Amino acid sequence: MVVKVYGPLYAAPKRVLVCLVEKEVDFETVPIDLLKGENKHPDFLKLQPFGTVPLIQDGDYTLYESRAIMRYYAEKYKSQGTDLLGKTIEERGLVEQWLEVEAHNFQPPIYNLVVHILFAPVLGFPSDPKILQESEEKLGKVLDIYEEQLSKSKYLAGDFFSLADISHLPFTHFLVANMGKEYMIKDRKHVSAWWDDISNRPSWKRVLQFGDPF
Amino acid sequence: MVVKVYGPLYAAPKRVLVCLVEKEVDFETVPIDLLKGENKHPDFLKLQPFGTVPLIQDGDYTLYESRAIMRYYAEKYKSQGTDLLGKTIEERGLVEQWLEVEAHNFQPPIYNLVVHILFAPVLGFPSDPKILQESEEKLGKVLDIYEEQLSKSKYLAGDFFSLADISHLPFTHFLVANMGKEYMIKDRKHVSAWWDDISNRPSWKRVLQFGDPF
Repeated sequence: MVVKVYGPLYAAPKRVLVCLVEKEVDFETVPIDLLKGENKHPDFLKLQPFGTVPLIQDGDYTLYESRAIMRYYAEKYKSQGTDLLGKTIEERGLVEQWLEVEAHNFQPPIYNLVVHILFAPVLGFPSDPKILQESEEKLGKVLDIYEEQLSKSKYLAGDFFSLADISHLPFTHFLVANMGKEYMIKDRKHVSAWWDDISNRPSWKRVLQFGDPF
Repeated sequence: MVVKVYGPLYAAPKRVLVCLVEKEVDFETVPIDLLKGENKHPDFLKLQPFGTVPLIQDGDYTLYESRAIMRYYAEKYKSQGTDLLGKTIEERGLVEQWLEVEAHNFQPPIYNLVVHILFAPVLGFPSDPKILQESEEKLGKVLDIYEEQLSKSKYLAGDFFSLADISHLPFTHFLVANMGKEYMIKDRKHVSAWWDDISNRPSWKRVLQFGDPF
């Protein structure tokens, strides 16, 4: 059974795609155009009532929320492909901790930067300089803590690549490649080395080929 | 070894405490006064660089982020106390999905309501009527989706109590008990029945005894 992944153009679904490539799980993609509101179509809302991507269908099983889907496949194919959860319950705990840090500390400011730099022109609303400044300050403080953490271990949760690292790929890619903010990564020695490592993985290079929404 | 849980007065640490009670794990609590800035003290920041609670110490092992800590103990003591992750990988996937829904859809609007109704007077800033109105509308839409989900299963992730339900307890308690917004729960038949069920568990009644910060 091939896994269907909805919304490959967007950032959150790319987390799932990288995870599936690392786990050597076959998938096909189903395009969803958020700018045309296809995520608010009644047929889509029956599967994902909040109207967001990604969504996966795997036979009769349907699941949404990118970090939940990653955890599911990392667990289901534990011994296939790259181990993404650590080897012990304690290592998994740290993977979970850094996944939560990504969701609650890293994602809100970088999301604001992406919306106000990349999506504002596409969606035709004015970029807010105050939000831009505050978000860059907040993200800088988070990255300072990452710099400290990555001076102690090669990856966020320890000396092993994990879901916690994958979860940072799509939005950090925007920051480095599309937004003129690559100095936020490059000026931090250990963050920069970590980014060079994870963004050069073949899985991420393959997933990048699905393109961007702008 | 007794688990030390920092910050029992606050909402997020109460998620961890309920989980530990359900898993029959002994713990002791360490008070942290956020209003006095104890979470920004250098000794605390060495353990939790983002300066938030909860934090746990379990022998040499330190972990933060409430939902990560819950997952760790639910997994570590899988066969002790209440099973909180479901019986299959597919059930756990749904627990993870609804934990993410709680974090990304439910928590932001209810957090805004709590801050602007309960904390504004304590911290001495004016409550913002526009934020209150928008947050209540957003939360209402989320609860409409919960109503539909809970008409199909007794708990959020299925017919079994899980971490996804626990994660809703502290903030929903504020909404019902302290904020004059209990109609948001009571006016939705299945949400109301779910709330009656989970809020009457002995674990939650025990954890409520740790008190509130206001």
